[in-house]
Amino acid sequence: MTASTRPDNRAPDALRPVRITRHYTIHAEGSVLIEFGNTKVLCTASVEEKVPPHKRGSGEGWVTAEYGMLPRATHTRSSREAAKGKQSGRTQEIQRLIGRSLRAVFDLKALGERTISLDCDVLQADGGTRTASITGAYVAAADAVATLLKGGLITESPIKGPVAAISVGILNGTPLLDLEYVEDSTCDTDMNVVMTGAGHFVEVQGTAEGVAFTRQEMDALLALAEKGIDELVKLQAQALAA
Amino acid sequence: MTASTRPDNRAPDALRPVRITRHYTIHAEGSVLIEFGNTKVLCTASVEEKVPPHKRGSGEGWVTAEYGMLPRATHTRSSREAAKGKQSGRTQEIQRLIGRSLRAVFDLKALGERTISLDCDVLQADGGTRTASITGAYVAAADAVATLLKGGLITESPIKGPVAAISVGILNGTPLLDLEYVEDSTCDTDMNVVMTGAGHFVEVQGTAEGVAFTRQEMDALLALAEKGIDELVKLQAQALAA
Amino acid sequence: MTASTRPDNRAPDALRPVRITRHYTIHAEGSVLIEFGNTKVLCTASVEEKVPPHKRGSGEGWVTAEYGMLPRATHTRSSREAAKGKQSGRTQEIQRLIGRSLRAVFDLKALGERTISLDCDVLQADGGTRTASITGAYVAAADAVATLLKGGLITESPIKGPVAAISVGILNGTPLLDLEYVEDSTCDTDMNVVMTGAGHFVEVQGTAEGVAFTRQEMDALLALAEKGIDELVKLQAQALAA
Amino acid sequence: MTASTRPDNRAPDALRPVRITRHYTIHAEGSVLIEFGNTKVLCTASVEEKVPPHKRGSGEGWVTAEYGMLPRATHTRSSREAAKGKQSGRTQEIQRLIGRSLRAVFDLKALGERTISLDCDVLQADGGTRTASITGAYVAAADAVATLLKGGLITESPIKGPVAAISVGILNGTPLLDLEYVEDSTCDTDMNVVMTGAGHFVEVQGTAEGVAFTRQEMDALLALAEKGIDELVKLQAQALAA
Amino acid sequence: MTASTRPDNRAPDALRPVRITRHYTIHAEGSVLIEFGNTKVLCTASVEEKVPPHKRGSGEGWVTAEYGMLPRATHTRSSREAAKGKQSGRTQEIQRLIGRSLRAVFDLKALGERTISLDCDVLQADGGTRTASITGAYVAAADAVATLLKGGLITESPIKGPVAAISVGILNGTPLLDLEYVEDSTCDTDMNVVMTGAGHFVEVQGTAEGVAFTRQEMDALLALAEKGIDELVKLQAQALAA
Amino acid sequence: MTASTRPDNRAPDALRPVRITRHYTIHAEGSVLIEFGNTKVLCTASVEEKVPPHKRGSGEGWVTAEYGMLPRATHTRSSREAAKGKQSGRTQEIQRLIGRSLRAVFDLKALGERTISLDCDVLQADGGTRTASITGAYVAAADAVATLLKGGLITESPIKGPVAAISVGILNGTPLLDLEYVEDSTCDTDMNVVMTGAGHFVEVQGTAEGVAFTRQEMDALLALAEKGIDELVKLQAQALAA
Repeated sequence: MTASTRPDNRAPDALRPVRITRHYTIHAEGSVLIEFGNTKVLCTASVEEKVPPHKRGSGEGWVTAEYGMLPRATHTRSSREAAKGKQSGRTQEIQRLIGRSLRAVFDLKALGERTISLDCDVLQADGGTRTASITGAYVAAADAVATLLKGGLITESPIKGPVAAISVGILNGTPLLDLEYVEDSTCDTDMNVVMTGAGHFVEVQGTAEGVAFTRQEMDALLALAEKGIDELVKLQAQALAA
Repeated sequence: MTASTRPDNRAPDALRPVRITRHYTIHAEGSVLIEFGNTKVLCTASVEEKVPPHKRGSGEGWVTAEYGMLPRATHTRSSREAAKGKQSGRTQEIQRLIGRSLRAVFDLKALGERTISLDCDVLQADGGTRTASITGAYVAAADAVATLLKGGLITESPIKGPVAAISVGILNGTPLLDLEYVEDSTCDTDMNVVMTGAGHFVEVQGTAEGVAFTRQEMDALLALAEKGIDELVKLQAQALAA
Repeated sequence: MTASTRPDNRAPDALRPVRITRHYTIHAEGSVLIEFGNTKVLCTASVEEKVPPHKRGSGEGWVTAEYGMLPRATHTRSSREAAKGKQSGRTQEIQRLIGRSLRAVFDLKALGERTISLDCDVLQADGGTRTASITGAYVAAADAVATLLKGGLITESPIKGPVAAISVGILNGTPLLDLEYVEDSTCDTDMNVVMTGAGHFVEVQGTAEGVAFTRQEMDALLALAEKGIDELVKLQAQALAA
Repeated sequence: MTASTRPDNRAPDALRPVRITRHYTIHAEGSVLIEFGNTKVLCTASVEEKVPPHKRGSGEGWVTAEYGMLPRATHTRSSREAAKGKQSGRTQEIQRLIGRSLRAVFDLKALGERTISLDCDVLQADGGTRTASITGAYVAAADAVATLLKGGLITESPIKGPVAAISVGILNGTPLLDLEYVEDSTCDTDMNVVMTGAGHFVEVQGTAEGVAFTRQEMDALLALAEKGIDELVKLQAQALAA
Repeated sequence: MTASTRPDNRAPDALRPVRITRHYTIHAEGSVLIEFGNTKVLCTASVEEKVPPHKRGSGEGWVTAEYGMLPRATHTRSSREAAKGKQSGRTQEIQRLIGRSLRAVFDLKALGERTISLDCDVLQADGGTRTASITGAYVAAADAVATLLKGGLITESPIKGPVAAISVGILNGTPLLDLEYVEDSTCDTDMNVVMTGAGHFVEVQGTAEGVAFTRQEMDALLALAEKGIDELVKLQAQALAA
Repeated sequence: MTASTRPDNRAPDALRPVRITRHYTIHAEGSVLIEFGNTKVLCTASVEEKVPPHKRGSGEGWVTAEYGMLPRATHTRSSREAAKGKQSGRTQEIQRLIGRSLRAVFDLKALGERTISLDCDVLQADGGTRTASITGAYVAAADAVATLLKGGLITESPIKGPVAAISVGILNGTPLLDLEYVEDSTCDTDMNVVMTGAGHFVEVQGTAEGVAFTRQEMDALLALAEKGIDELVKLQAQALAA
């Protein structure tokens, strides 16, 4: 694997083809299939008229997320977390990240005492499942909010603006946008960046897989992430306008 | 809900529209999306070159199944089994049924010491998820076997013939084929029937939800199931021939 | 094992000796030791003046069941479920079956907002533990109801009629009634049938262990089950009249 | 509850009627129903030709115990540990005590690399379940050892002598032997004593339920326990000689 | 290991150096580091204005304990109970003992409807962790009660007197006080004794590790324990007076 | 809480007093108490001559970490994870971070097929427990490596250089170094930075708690972190030289 030849001759600063399909399933208030190339995540937003204990009586709502991966979403079958009887540390880390990211753009007061649960289930994995989840969950959440507005349960949207996420990494010294699996597993540094539509940071999680990275490399990665998120926010808007 | 007016004016002895999409995801040796009307189940078949302890050294293989339901596959969100830390009795009952049904058409000796794991994950539920799972899992298993044959790992198919499943029930005295959710939740008797392509029974599970059912009613239900399974077996064959 | 020579020269359509001992233990409202030959199950019925969440405030009661097997009830010791930290799929399947079977003959409205818990614990196993459990649990439940009537907590019995269960199977082409362990583990088809005193079906669960079974075989099995259950219902009545 | 009038006019230093029934169930190498009055415990001894990891290759065997209580062994139904998914601290404490007590009279070297598992399941509880368990488990273990000797797997008994257990307590200043439930729950001090046939102590567990107890009281309790265990050891010998 | 030469030439009836450090951590209402030689246990007492279900509305409080051992408190690393997902039987046995011991000196009515939770965490283990825990937990509990008195939440102390604990054992026929690890793991008899300041017994737990012990040996052990606890109670008082 | 007046008049770019105490407990190969002000973490490094399955036969070793918090390390008591039966998502996230951070400075080949387990247990918490854990775990790991070198098990150190971690945050627009609890819970942005002695990044985890942060703010935070880590690395070296 060398950085000069990405699969499909993708440019170092190019996203994979992104597809956002709304109303993918029929029961959820928001239901979005998001695809980043071969990575496919079903994001549903469910509205429930109750809140967890720490919000009861507060007048505020809650936004939370759960993440799962179908056993054969990956190259080799991984065991089912429900059968093992617990969620892995990785799963919990990811679902906590999705939850924080979405809460960052929600006015919980304006949501009222109700919960929006975002379920992000990976049907097919090829790298970037957590960033696709966040990006898709935003669209599902927006649809769920639209349902609440239409139903007269709230009169103004509690969403303060869009949020999206992308991965960036360094492979043989070259910064790359939106890593797919073969890139992710060989690159030296891997960073997931979550930003608002206004270009501000919500989460930055960078990890040196091999060699520690320099400040210059970090700057290059952040710039690349900004570019990618700018494009994703536009794609979210297009999908919601359709 | 009355039996005389099924949703979409379906005849009492008619299946819902069935769609079988092979190669739905890219990693699994067999990957099938099966739809019985609004019920959508992703069935993957994964081949692993190992067997559970009770088969080690036996020269025989194993076929097993797991079943899951995405939290918002249903009208209201149900909690995630991985987060709760255990699979419900219903889930275990269903995955045991799927496993037994598929093993009924497998020659485990001819499979050799390897395992085929069938993962049936419900993306959208509208009644009949277990029967759709069995019917789809057979197609996924057939694709996995084809992969083994192509790869020269086995020289003849261990599959003895097709297997499919359908639900039948009695609503206000009328026997109905392939119950959807609103029918399933109101009918008096609910029966799931699994049969081979030769028209023999693999599993019969009938439950009186309200009033106990008579021998005459049972006979009517079994006849209806035979008709439905005959059609499903043809649809499986068409899908595999495509 | 051949069908022509059953252990103890039992006829193909004969039950094993059935013994029903009421008041087997002193604390429970109903306590029955039921024996089908060497299979011995202690069935207790406990009345509690509370209902599970889904029945609260409904004016209706609940009937539920749990099943267990002592570790050395079987030929070789099986590990204790309490020590392993979970009930097997088989255990859950059986206790769900017992619960549904008993609820089928209960008028939950007439029971009032209370719960009858049926605990079926296998002291010694030799095939047919689930059918013995259902048959014995009915007698224990009847005793518990008698306690409620005597105590003036209810004025008419919520029991609509008796329920009993028996296993049937096919061994080398011969249909057999009430399988003991050596028969159960070698027969081609195994079916558990639960019926009311009126001869109607509550549950039918048939499984082809080896070869799939035909409609003719199924008919023979159902007829045999009807005969067996008719005898069991009489034995229940005799025990309750004693 | 006063000490001067024990139920059934039992003398302060009298055991309840003790009954020991061998061969109570058919599969286990040792199977004993022991009754201390209304307390009934089924003790089975199972021989397995394997040892836990810490004994592998040591040439020594292992003796272990598990304890359980049927849900309705008690006045009010207690929840099933297998359903709750864990054994209580009380259960673990008791089964560890039974295991240590039995190992105290076993020569593990002479047992050879095999395990004897003692399962003590309380069918009916009325105080003293742990002492009945130890006393009955010894008889079951002796029967299991006899099976090994008969089968030629060992040539001399690994049992060094009998072991038995009894509870003693102080109620309103009077020391009492073999407490039943109503006594146990009201007495100030509760002590369980495990002794060998030679009159030596294996375990002493005394607890001040209310007021702390003096050295004089302790001496009186130990003397009472010695008397009771002496009688139990004779009853064990009679049962084994029968 | 022989009894004649204890490590550090300690006399058979001598305690190890005991150190009691109050206010060891800053957040808890009581926080004590207790050292018995190389055994170091951090005991915190936490006051919470709520009681467990069985005390709600009773006007009484509750005192409870939990016990833990850091993974490398011992010679070789033991696995973390939080990671394994359950507390061992040994841990539960110990924390139940600590809780009962402390409740023995508390007037729960005078405590009022609140809970004192005693957390005993072993930072370094060298034998006697449970006896150090009880002895230290008493001091932490006393500090927590002082906080309640100072805050005016109660007007008189619910503590009826001190409680302390020590281990005693027999090594090659010699009774020894306060066993350290090398002694504990080789001695024939091991006894933990919990006593009040008035010299009465709260708990006595003696176990024959090898040979069963005689009444004479038991008497010697109890006398030794009395001596040790008398010293510990003085050290507790000194610490609380400082 | 305003940024202009930090507790103890600490300057915005000042660390809290840091203390590193080696050989804090006696059994572990490395045992370090690290204090960042009132935050106190016991970090032990345990060497075990075995590796997890994914490293067996690879010739490489493994470095892993576990994290825990004593129940009353915090202002109010939090429930014990061992008692609840599972580690929280937060705990797993932190221990995964510590493990990755330490592995970043280890040459696993040079370590040989053995495991170093780093246990970081928080005795007292006041913000920054994960950064103190990483900084202390490095010193404990260095001591464990010294033990291996001294014992001749390895001939050259597998440690490539030091690693340390610090938190930074923005409170009312002012970037602050090394947040204590009151600051952490009120600041808008919270970032944990892990760096090598050479000033390169190993991990960067930034989270907008309230308002998303700008690129300029991120730059300021990273600069502040660099300064803090530079000081910590010097303190680690001093401690190891002592």
